[in-house]
Amino acid sequence: MKTYAVTFQPDNCTVRAAAGRSILDAAKAAGITINNVCGGDGVCGKCRVVIRAGKVTAKPTMFLNRHDIQRGAALACQTYVAGDVVVEVPPESRTGGIPHLAHEDAVRFGKVCAKIGEGATYPSSPLVRKVFLELPQPTVEDSLADQERLYRSVRKHYDLPIMQMGLSVLRRLSNTLRRCNWKATALLGSRGGTVEVVDVEPGNTAATNYGVALDIGTTTIVAHLVDLTNGETIAANARYNSQSAFGEDVIARIMYAGTADGLSVLQDTVVSDINGLISALVFDAGVRLADVTCVVCAGNTTMVHLLLGLDPAHIRCDPYVPCTLNPPVIRAAEVGITIGARGLLTALPCVASYVGGDVLADVLVTEITRSEELSLLIDLGTNGELVLGNSEWLMCCSASAGPSFEGGGIGCGMRATSGAVEWLTLGEGGRVVGCGVVGGERPLGLCGSGLIDAVAGLLSAGCIDRAGHFVADVCGPRLQKNDAGEKAFILFPGEQTALGRDIALTEADISNLIRSKGSVYMAAECLLDHVGLTFHDVRNVYIAGGFGNHLGVEQAIRIGLLPDLERSIFQVVGNGSVLGAKMVMLSEHALKYIQDNIASAMTYVELSTSHKYMNEYTSCLFLPHTDIERFPSVAKATRLQNGSGAAE
Amino acid sequence: MKTYAVTFQPDNCTVRAAAGRSILDAAKAAGITINNVCGGDGVCGKCRVVIRAGKVTAKPTMFLNRHDIQRGAALACQTYVAGDVVVEVPPESRTGGIPHLAHEDAVRFGKVCAKIGEGATYPSSPLVRKVFLELPQPTVEDSLADQERLYRSVRKHYDLPIMQMGLSVLRRLSNTLRRCNWKATALLGSRGGTVEVVDVEPGNTAATNYGVALDIGTTTIVAHLVDLTNGETIAANARYNSQSAFGEDVIARIMYAGTADGLSVLQDTVVSDINGLISALVFDAGVRLADVTCVVCAGNTTMVHLLLGLDPAHIRCDPYVPCTLNPPVIRAAEVGITIGARGLLTALPCVASYVGGDVLADVLVTEITRSEELSLLIDLGTNGELVLGNSEWLMCCSASAGPSFEGGGIGCGMRATSGAVEWLTLGEGGRVVGCGVVGGERPLGLCGSGLIDAVAGLLSAGCIDRAGHFVADVCGPRLQKNDAGEKAFILFPGEQTALGRDIALTEADISNLIRSKGSVYMAAECLLDHVGLTFHDVRNVYIAGGFGNHLGVEQAIRIGLLPDLERSIFQVVGNGSVLGAKMVMLSEHALKYIQDNIASAMTYVELSTSHKYMNEYTSCLFLPHTDIERFPSVAKATRLQNGSGAAE
Repeated sequence: MKTYAVTFQPDNCTVRAAAGRSILDAAKAAGITINNVCGGDGVCGKCRVVIRAGKVTAKPTMFLNRHDIQRGAALACQTYVAGDVVVEVPPESRTGGIPHLAHEDAVRFGKVCAKIGEGATYPSSPLVRKVFLELPQPTVEDSLADQERLYRSVRKHYDLPIMQMGLSVLRRLSNTLRRCNWKATALLGSRGGTVEVVDVEPGNTAATNYGVALDIGTTTIVAHLVDLTNGETIAANARYNSQSAFGEDVIARIMYAGTADGLSVLQDTVVSDINGLISALVFDAGVRLADVTCVVCAGNTTMVHLLLGLDPAHIRCDPYVPCTLNPPVIRAAEVGITIGARGLLTALPCVASYVGGDVLADVLVTEITRSEELSLLIDLGTNGELVLGNSEWLMCCSASAGPSFEGGGIGCGMRATSGAVEWLTLGEGGRVVGCGVVGGERPLGLCGSGLIDAVAGLLSAGCIDRAGHFVADVCGPRLQKNDAGEKAFILFPGEQTALGRDIALTEADISNLIRSKGSVYMAAECLLDHVGLTFHDVRNVYIAGGFGNHLGVEQAIRIGLLPDLERSIFQVVGNGSVLGAKMVMLSEHALKYIQDNIASAMTYVELSTSHKYMNEYTSCLFLPHTDIERFPSVAKATRLQNGSGAAE
Repeated sequence: MKTYAVTFQPDNCTVRAAAGRSILDAAKAAGITINNVCGGDGVCGKCRVVIRAGKVTAKPTMFLNRHDIQRGAALACQTYVAGDVVVEVPPESRTGGIPHLAHEDAVRFGKVCAKIGEGATYPSSPLVRKVFLELPQPTVEDSLADQERLYRSVRKHYDLPIMQMGLSVLRRLSNTLRRCNWKATALLGSRGGTVEVVDVEPGNTAATNYGVALDIGTTTIVAHLVDLTNGETIAANARYNSQSAFGEDVIARIMYAGTADGLSVLQDTVVSDINGLISALVFDAGVRLADVTCVVCAGNTTMVHLLLGLDPAHIRCDPYVPCTLNPPVIRAAEVGITIGARGLLTALPCVASYVGGDVLADVLVTEITRSEELSLLIDLGTNGELVLGNSEWLMCCSASAGPSFEGGGIGCGMRATSGAVEWLTLGEGGRVVGCGVVGGERPLGLCGSGLIDAVAGLLSAGCIDRAGHFVADVCGPRLQKNDAGEKAFILFPGEQTALGRDIALTEADISNLIRSKGSVYMAAECLLDHVGLTFHDVRNVYIAGGFGNHLGVEQAIRIGLLPDLERSIFQVVGNGSVLGAKMVMLSEHALKYIQDNIASAMTYVELSTSHKYMNEYTSCLFLPHTDIERFPSVAKATRLQNGSGAAE
């Protein structure tokens, strides 16, 4: 079959592709990840590229107008190679950028880290420890065998009832110990109640022991490199989960996993992302990959299944049963993760099919279970998870929030990478009077927090009504018809943006956000209702998730995502998942606490069977709610704005 | 390079061999194991074959006279292919025959087995158990994950604090459980304080669970196939350890292991022997190999190291330190043993470099540690091991007995296979008045027990003096010169033997036996002396080892191998090593008893540093001893024989 050269710009990377292959496939082969929410079905319009030269064929699409096409624009998934081609992939169509949340989390971890160590909540005991041993040389009087000699020395440091050692380490042991003159470093790994001598290194290598904490989200993977000798985070990085190409949410992934080779493709994909992150981390930090001894990951139940190559099929079907909630500690190499040769991979346990280790990590970090006060935790991801409880009990549920908090399903939506508007303030008529753009560049689009600010601002300005419809009189000239003929409110005109195209919101965009926020709010209300409580009983609200970093609490209340409570009780946690993974990596006591005091105490409430949820969900499809009196501060502000005493 | 056809008779097996290859190598290629004590150096003379046709070249040798050579006799290791050849390998030059001890041990095990089970010494709990589980099908109310559901059901049967499951089993679990409609059999394996779900099989397979107990001796490997559901031995088999081709004793093996690839060659060799035994066992018993779930082996420390591929080098050098005394439980496949896919291999722990799991097995079987009476255990192998103690203390030592008890180093010596004279009685002038031949055939040679009887008989008849020298007047015409010009006492003239050659003993043969027995006796005496006791304090003497099966206690005392004590205190144990391995396989409590009450209680005494041993060893180089009054019954018999009151 005839093949052609496909060159990607500005990467200047060329691959050969057979005639008829899509540009999206060619990009994958070139290692360029193009945004691709729908999985290549041509229905999301996110994979827009520009054909700079050469011959292609393409299917018709609603996402491109004549002007776009004349400028060379094309959807990568609907456009096929028909000759040598030069393709430009613009930044907004790329995934793999680094969300800047990583750095903030690294800073936040300073506080969390204070809970680990001598006299702190969790005594320091990394999941893989290095212990330098100066063994007494054997004599006729003390002719203990090499393995038992090593064990004896280790036990002088630690009280370890069950120690194990693999055959391959044992095979090298005698030579190693003699080569280093009986001065060696034992790597001790926690493996579900036992301790494995993971490896024995000659000499004193105890000063170089690193671990990688992972938050494996459906959309984003965050990785922190931690110095296990002192708990410091020395590098942080993140990238999008390339599995997105095979479906945006967990249900789509599970369905893909059910196709031929689907599971192994998904596993390979996430492992490749993780390996990419880890090699970037060790490069940045100037650390030898061989000195990375463990990986600890927190993720939702499906992500953990896919990482381990476990069949997630039954997570999706009634009665929603995962393969395991407590995956075994394995060698990272068993799933293809490349760290030190015999390094371990520990996945945080999960609670149920839709409440994973990421949520347990949040609970660990927020310490809900260490206080008598009632706390509500909301983890906002593609799936929203909620936890309610205190030191005596814990309930949790999950709510399908959809991708809008992460920029999905929104025309001008994007993830929180460079160019994303992460906050903005609107003035009269919806004019932008202030905004923050990630990286300080010209705006490219809105990430979730910017979107909430925009909708809250439009509502406050009266540009939209409480159903999310535009009020044309108030909007004025900013409301225009876009190429698709829809009404669109222009936040940033083309001349102010990085791409020269307007950044605008349509009613469909606003409607998507309303459904997302309604689903989360309703889930919280139902969870409280389930135990006969209301929002007014809650003393702390924690907002976690990568999204949660830039959340404007006021704006989130304004649109009805968060309940209208005393502002001081809200705390933005950040990425609790990666923070919790780090705590566990630094202290097996933290892991034990999760297992014995969090996971086992947590009751999962299945909302899909809740009548209240189904009946009252539609009440939440208003801004902030059908019954505005549930949001008294919003009601009051609205009344003030409309003139005192004006009828709502 | 030119190759020739080498045909072995009576096997009628032909292989191609390059010009210049030894007949020994060609035999190996043909799968025919030729006795080869010296490792192919031409110094043992055991590999005698007959060249029936064809052209060979050969090095000169002292082991063949002109007549032998004219009849075609050749040493396989010193004879080289120079054309197509037909070679006959006579029975006495072959190894790989089945010592008949296996069957006797199987019978003996009936008694031992009574110690295992409900209300017995060791509760029944095989190292790999099969548990049939009827799991409740998951519902929304009981939506426990598959792994946790399985664990919950297992824990209804057993109290298991730490359970583990490998990734590969977990990966198949969801499918397996649903395919069999939640009726499945879990294989639970004991792994050093934890329990592994080794595998999960659909349906009820609990009735088919088999294990193989191995005694891996330096010379002989014994294998018993046990039905783990009821403890019955359903097949038994044995073969010579093919490692013998690389050296007869542990020291020679350790040295070979130190050569390039030596360790892996030795490992492959013993694994191949074991696999051969196991496939024969399952074939004989009509059992599926896949239903063999565990292998338990007892062996000396070096044999265990070689099986596991652990470097034994330091066992040989002061201060005699093995790599491990407590090898980890591993998957049998890790060393190449083929049983059920994920079956486990457990090696009994060892005590010291020269006291292995075989001796611990002996102690378990004899129950020395369960009695207040002082017992002495003697395990007679290529290396002799001795244990002294009671329920309060245990001491052990080892003595290099040499191969003579197993037929090595003796002109007419052979192992206890078909044709071996296992007992004999001599009358006046050393005439054979009764004998037992293994298999009831014409005699081929003397095995260890026959050798002891012969020397004891010659001594009683006055044919040899107490130094082991022939007394020509008494011997009469039975004392002749052999082909090498040595004086040889003819026990069976050529016309009575299977090969037509005389079975005769030389003074050198007798001297070898005297050194062997002296070494064992002296070791026993030193061990007693070490704790300030004498033979008269001993209440039980147990004699173990494959050799021990046919031992005539009276004759052994006569030559000074065993002390002259009340005959009723001697008990022949048989192959305690394989018996103990079986007990362990059937009850993890027996393994725990070995670990906690035998291995840990045992103190190893290094005789090579004992002055008494070095000083008084020469006193033992007489029959029975320089000081015959130490053997009063022998002294009395001698006096009676020489006429009452005659001077010794």
